[in-house]
Amino acid sequence: MEKILYFERTEFDSRLATTKHEMAKRGLDILLLSEPPNVNYLTGYDSYTFYTPQMLIVALNRSEPIYVTRLVDRPSAQIFTYLAEENIRGFPDFYVNSTTSSAWAFIADVVKEVGGETARIGVELGGYYYSARTHADLVKALPNAEFLDADLLVNWIRIVKSPAELTLMRQAGRIADAMLTRAVEMAEPGVRECDLAAAVYHQQHSGLPEFGGSYDSSIPYFCVGDRARGPHSAWTDRPLPDSTQINIEVHGNRLRYQVHVSRTICIGKPTPEYTKFAEIQIEGLNAALETVRPGRACSEVFAAFSKVLAKHGIVKTERIGYSQGIGYPPAGSERTVSIREDEQTVLQPGMCLHLMPGLWLDNGTRSVAVTQPLEITQTGYAPLTTTPRVLVVKK
Amino acid sequence: MEKILYFERTEFDSRLATTKHEMAKRGLDILLLSEPPNVNYLTGYDSYTFYTPQMLIVALNRSEPIYVTRLVDRPSAQIFTYLAEENIRGFPDFYVNSTTSSAWAFIADVVKEVGGETARIGVELGGYYYSARTHADLVKALPNAEFLDADLLVNWIRIVKSPAELTLMRQAGRIADAMLTRAVEMAEPGVRECDLAAAVYHQQHSGLPEFGGSYDSSIPYFCVGDRARGPHSAWTDRPLPDSTQINIEVHGNRLRYQVHVSRTICIGKPTPEYTKFAEIQIEGLNAALETVRPGRACSEVFAAFSKVLAKHGIVKTERIGYSQGIGYPPAGSERTVSIREDEQTVLQPGMCLHLMPGLWLDNGTRSVAVTQPLEITQTGYAPLTTTPRVLVVKK
Repeated sequence: MEKILYFERTEFDSRLATTKHEMAKRGLDILLLSEPPNVNYLTGYDSYTFYTPQMLIVALNRSEPIYVTRLVDRPSAQIFTYLAEENIRGFPDFYVNSTTSSAWAFIADVVKEVGGETARIGVELGGYYYSARTHADLVKALPNAEFLDADLLVNWIRIVKSPAELTLMRQAGRIADAMLTRAVEMAEPGVRECDLAAAVYHQQHSGLPEFGGSYDSSIPYFCVGDRARGPHSAWTDRPLPDSTQINIEVHGNRLRYQVHVSRTICIGKPTPEYTKFAEIQIEGLNAALETVRPGRACSEVFAAFSKVLAKHGIVKTERIGYSQGIGYPPAGSERTVSIREDEQTVLQPGMCLHLMPGLWLDNGTRSVAVTQPLEITQTGYAPLTTTPRVLVVKK
Repeated sequence: MEKILYFERTEFDSRLATTKHEMAKRGLDILLLSEPPNVNYLTGYDSYTFYTPQMLIVALNRSEPIYVTRLVDRPSAQIFTYLAEENIRGFPDFYVNSTTSSAWAFIADVVKEVGGETARIGVELGGYYYSARTHADLVKALPNAEFLDADLLVNWIRIVKSPAELTLMRQAGRIADAMLTRAVEMAEPGVRECDLAAAVYHQQHSGLPEFGGSYDSSIPYFCVGDRARGPHSAWTDRPLPDSTQINIEVHGNRLRYQVHVSRTICIGKPTPEYTKFAEIQIEGLNAALETVRPGRACSEVFAAFSKVLAKHGIVKTERIGYSQGIGYPPAGSERTVSIREDEQTVLQPGMCLHLMPGLWLDNGTRSVAVTQPLEITQTGYAPLTTTPRVLVVKK
């Protein structure tokens, strides 16, 4: 059977070593990873199987992790991970959506094999794929183990990207640029929103002639007219009117590495007041960008943006950025760094951010979203997309 | 502000009444719904915002539920639900990805307003959006409340579709047919898998000239070559070879109502042995379909399929179907009925199933997936897609 792995084995080894180092520091014997991006990061595993129970078991006393998934999905792990045969386990199908048998109990039995019965076990308590029932079933099956919160342990390791990862982030950024270009081309009065969405998605999945794209961790947003009051609406099948506003956020994805970028597209000429409003947002974004470099705290980036806004009598309290990397549904971000007033995390080379200081004012009746994804370099930042930071007007 | 609601208010009222009736039966004062399909079902709410905390609070002592979401997403609830202004609450942005402030504590405060402090509260313990931390934070904030497992309470109500819902399921089925047609047209040697995926997705999102499509709750699967050993692989960007097998599963989605259907496409002529293998699978599917009608237990449908397989010396233990309806990531099914050996649930008119008795044998080295989505009618079933149930061969 073929193997499909997008990183060198040495890179996976290094990621695992860093994870184990952090486990040891926290006194964890075993780390149970239920979040798909973390499983992907440590093993390469990539299939849409996380809607049924699965778990990566990292034990300090074993060189290789063990992956447990649904039996029918075991071949995916054989193809997409470097793991040895004996470290890929499958639970029978009767566990799926069963009210009587818990797949988590099956997984607990595998945890016992690596000394889990009396271990200190880290779990991703706040993860999307670690439900209250998951926890209850594991605790019941391992009553003498000690469970500790290790949520985001791997996320904080993933935040600094390797050169190989940065290559994929840059490719994802190029796809995101192409998606924005396609959106601007297609956005015309009379075009159904769903046809606009379909064209943008087509670009996302097809990617570029040199490399293909993939699905994103959420959906591209198409906030049209009244729906631009909130930032997270999907499309409808109504035709675009002669004059409206579209806040669009697209997500380029290359081998699960994901780059977000937003633009506001005006169909029909905007008012001078609105144009001015957009200019303020872009001025704030550019001021924030000028502060971005290694050693700076996130709060300083936020302050630079706020200072511009204050000049114009505007206050924004929402975060204006977050870190990005491997994307799996439903998450839009890595759930680590946020660029906001009180965030003291210091920027380091290899971090990737989506700087997204969109403005939604007066219950969303005034909104604009021009954003910039970027990587932190040794001396400053490099943009991950090259689409100009302007309000797009289609007359 | 405009309202976008796809069902009559009387239908939402009826869904809520049925939910409250079930709550009363179970002795629940309050039901906390964190699963997006259940929130959509009871209120119409539809935005991709579930990656941050949100909760629908249904209290027996109040006529309308209360929805709590992130403040920036509040306008989405104003547009996409019938809820009164005071029943749409937003938590400030500093709760998002915070390590110090819990949005669940904010939500617990709203639960207190409706008598939650000492109530019997049902929660979706096994839901995708009810993490171990969610539960811990709620229990901590409401120490004198009694928490009970109400997972799937609304899912089991949703399983029988109304006439208005069936209309959307049929439209979703027509989109799924168009997606399969597009896949078969595009699947040619030399075409990159990502371009095939892009074309199929384009059809999904664009929909039909009469009505548009939407995103699905997972991804369409493109299991090519070795990756056909497992059922849940995405595409790569490699060109299709001159001879290979593709197991494809597509998901038509119309206003969140979703219909799944699979086909195996052979590029290049399959061997007589493989053709025979596919014929057995289809014979089994057809035999299962003949048993489908109201009053039949799921186990009887499974038995009809197994009987055909047994004739050919094949045993399949995995489930061969599940119920379908509203779809949100990451779920592929409604998590209620499975068509399998021991499932005693009796079929009723208005249920919709994806009958998917694909075969993966010998560690997936032999696989075929011809499936049929359907609705249960008063006297039998009606297919939700019309694509012929055959092995597709492209020479």
